[in-house]
Amino acid sequence: MAIASLLFHRMTDEIEAPSAPASAPRYLAADEVGLVTSQDFVYPRAFTFKNGQQLSGLALRYETYGTLNATRDNAVLICHALSGNHHAAGWNSPADKKPGWWNNLIGPGKAVDTRRFFVICANVPGGCSGSTGPSSPNPATGEPYGLRFPALTILDMVRAQKLLLDHLGVAELHTVIGGSMGGMTAMLFAIEFPRFTRRLLAMATTAREGAQAIAFNEVGRQAIMQDPAWLNGDYPRDGGPRVGLAIARMMAHITYLSDASMERKFGRRTIQSRAQSPQLHSELPASGAPPSDSPLSTLNSQPSAAAADFNIQFEVESYLRHQGQTFINRFDANSYLYITRALDQFDLDHAYGSLEQAFAPVQAESLVVGFTSDWLFPPEQNRAIALALLRAGKRASYAELATDLGHDSFLLESEELYALVRGFLERDQPYASDFAI
Amino acid sequence: MAIASLLFHRMTDEIEAPSAPASAPRYLAADEVGLVTSQDFVYPRAFTFKNGQQLSGLALRYETYGTLNATRDNAVLICHALSGNHHAAGWNSPADKKPGWWNNLIGPGKAVDTRRFFVICANVPGGCSGSTGPSSPNPATGEPYGLRFPALTILDMVRAQKLLLDHLGVAELHTVIGGSMGGMTAMLFAIEFPRFTRRLLAMATTAREGAQAIAFNEVGRQAIMQDPAWLNGDYPRDGGPRVGLAIARMMAHITYLSDASMERKFGRRTIQSRAQSPQLHSELPASGAPPSDSPLSTLNSQPSAAAADFNIQFEVESYLRHQGQTFINRFDANSYLYITRALDQFDLDHAYGSLEQAFAPVQAESLVVGFTSDWLFPPEQNRAIALALLRAGKRASYAELATDLGHDSFLLESEELYALVRGFLERDQPYASDFAI
Repeated sequence: MAIASLLFHRMTDEIEAPSAPASAPRYLAADEVGLVTSQDFVYPRAFTFKNGQQLSGLALRYETYGTLNATRDNAVLICHALSGNHHAAGWNSPADKKPGWWNNLIGPGKAVDTRRFFVICANVPGGCSGSTGPSSPNPATGEPYGLRFPALTILDMVRAQKLLLDHLGVAELHTVIGGSMGGMTAMLFAIEFPRFTRRLLAMATTAREGAQAIAFNEVGRQAIMQDPAWLNGDYPRDGGPRVGLAIARMMAHITYLSDASMERKFGRRTIQSRAQSPQLHSELPASGAPPSDSPLSTLNSQPSAAAADFNIQFEVESYLRHQGQTFINRFDANSYLYITRALDQFDLDHAYGSLEQAFAPVQAESLVVGFTSDWLFPPEQNRAIALALLRAGKRASYAELATDLGHDSFLLESEELYALVRGFLERDQPYASDFAI
Repeated sequence: MAIASLLFHRMTDEIEAPSAPASAPRYLAADEVGLVTSQDFVYPRAFTFKNGQQLSGLALRYETYGTLNATRDNAVLICHALSGNHHAAGWNSPADKKPGWWNNLIGPGKAVDTRRFFVICANVPGGCSGSTGPSSPNPATGEPYGLRFPALTILDMVRAQKLLLDHLGVAELHTVIGGSMGGMTAMLFAIEFPRFTRRLLAMATTAREGAQAIAFNEVGRQAIMQDPAWLNGDYPRDGGPRVGLAIARMMAHITYLSDASMERKFGRRTIQSRAQSPQLHSELPASGAPPSDSPLSTLNSQPSAAAADFNIQFEVESYLRHQGQTFINRFDANSYLYITRALDQFDLDHAYGSLEQAFAPVQAESLVVGFTSDWLFPPEQNRAIALALLRAGKRASYAELATDLGHDSFLLESEELYALVRGFLERDQPYASDFAI
């Protein structure tokens, strides 16, 4: 027993503190899922969208972390947000500078513990990270679908992902988790596949896209569609409305933060004053000017004799341009149109007659998490989801985390959030309905 | 006495209820300033901007309502916001569909009573409603200044308006009033011309433009400057970045409202459902499509066989496009760049060392009004102004009005606001410093 214990400790030590040098890459660390390879699932039959249109050869790019157990009931589906994708955790290559978008939450021993759960994340249909979307070639023509891609809804995302789960042999979902649009997807999973979905964890989301959120989406779409390079969606692969997409992203990014977090992160610091202060934001371009290959640099230059200066003056401007710039290198403008429209259309109340009716079939235990500083999908909207679940007689709880990081709070490091997620995933028994505001 | 009283009543009746038929135009009503004519003041010397640049022939377009009294001390200066102008009250022509932008506040017997006060409102320098700005012809070339117009600050707006007031023979300002950017202008009047400014009424404003507000301004500027028609600011008079300006305005307009007011006004109502419901918003175009002469209509049309629909579906989309559309017909894109940059630069704390030092010279009694639903310049930022005035030993008060109309609350009908304004303007004696949160 003493020996076994010793051995166990040694093994644990080896796992938790590998003897690699201090400069060992982070992806080798024991609490990381490490290097992962994305995979493609191609649905062998025609996929029928909610609007009745059919698509052959629908592909979903996905990643999995951990192992499906013998009873095939330890699967956790991660649902991504508007600009997310299937790469939720780990590194696709040792050269990657960053891990997947929810790497802080997913891994061996992390809140979503990949030693225990089989974690799946898929790029939504309509997306542009490997799943079939408007930028995919239309087999009939070889050209991108563009606006010939079927109208997209959150329900289509749910149904497509269910096909993937069936393909993977998942008997039932231990939990479906998502924030923002991912929260909508997760809720709809629990509604549409109630016997399949045992736990629902929705964060920073809403049961119906409100007028202000639609308004912001509409301005973003206009920025894209008014860009002369949009060409009614039939832009070449290496072109497209990059400027419009960057502007849409810059604006949207403001809605993901909060006034307080922007004030704390940037305040009114200027690019000039920043050069004299510590380099707080290493991701920012060193110069105030965007990189020379940036569409944002091509037109905003101005005569050097200009009396006024509309180039970057404030750090927050530089940060936003950087956000716009990086986004256009990884996202497709038509996908942005389709997915924002899917968000706009999302209204559980209207789709099912009432929120209580929407939730009537749900069998999952639910936890809804709101964030105090989220003004895109504010706490009230998250609380309303939990309340409706409770009124529908479901096991549901609501937690509100005090953060000043805005809508993106669900993506950021938070031990409080990790503890909530872990507690919700790892408790074994159904629990009595409780609700605390 | 009975006869005199009777006569008085008759006269009052005549004033308050003119015997015109029910269809009499509103501009004839007794509590309206009626038809007004804008005037131009041209400064006869070179005007020196804060950055040292000089401009000859600076013109300010302005309107006045009421009469300057013999002691020349009954003047009330109205300071407009970013997209406002000199036309604060009354009608410029019987054909005008709408009166000036603060007509509900200004007029005979209204909160700013033109029977008692000589009310002045001027378009700011840099503007595009008649005052000299980037769209004005550069005398040296005959072409618009474009970006050769001097860099603009709120201080330049204040100094230019002071020249106008001197020209009009105003000995001292009874009150300077403004909301949003107008509140900044008003504060700076009280700081820069302390002996001249007896009362200061600032609403929905801030002592320093914060990171989020700068961020929104920057996205708007990018939308304009990335529009290929911007041409580094040297666009023809009949052209220019109309699409970019419309997008900037659509986005900015969201920040002037509140989530609650948009929800109440539009919710998720669609254009289709609206056709079946009462015509609530007569200002909206009857069809979902923008007018055919709209830049917003030229590019956003899509193939009729399109699978997805990115045309207008929701009322809020139609409303925003209408806002963008009407704005580009009355506003100059370069003025938008200059004035938003002036807002970004506004930081009393930084300019004077501290907010208390900024307010040290102030002799005006001050009232600051914040609105609970204003998230562009939220109540805290307005409260901070009053607190700093109090710490600097000034007579100052703060009032917070509960509205759900967002930043634009200061422009909308509110008996509560009218009573506050009237009470502040009409009290005769200095008052003890009081402050209630």
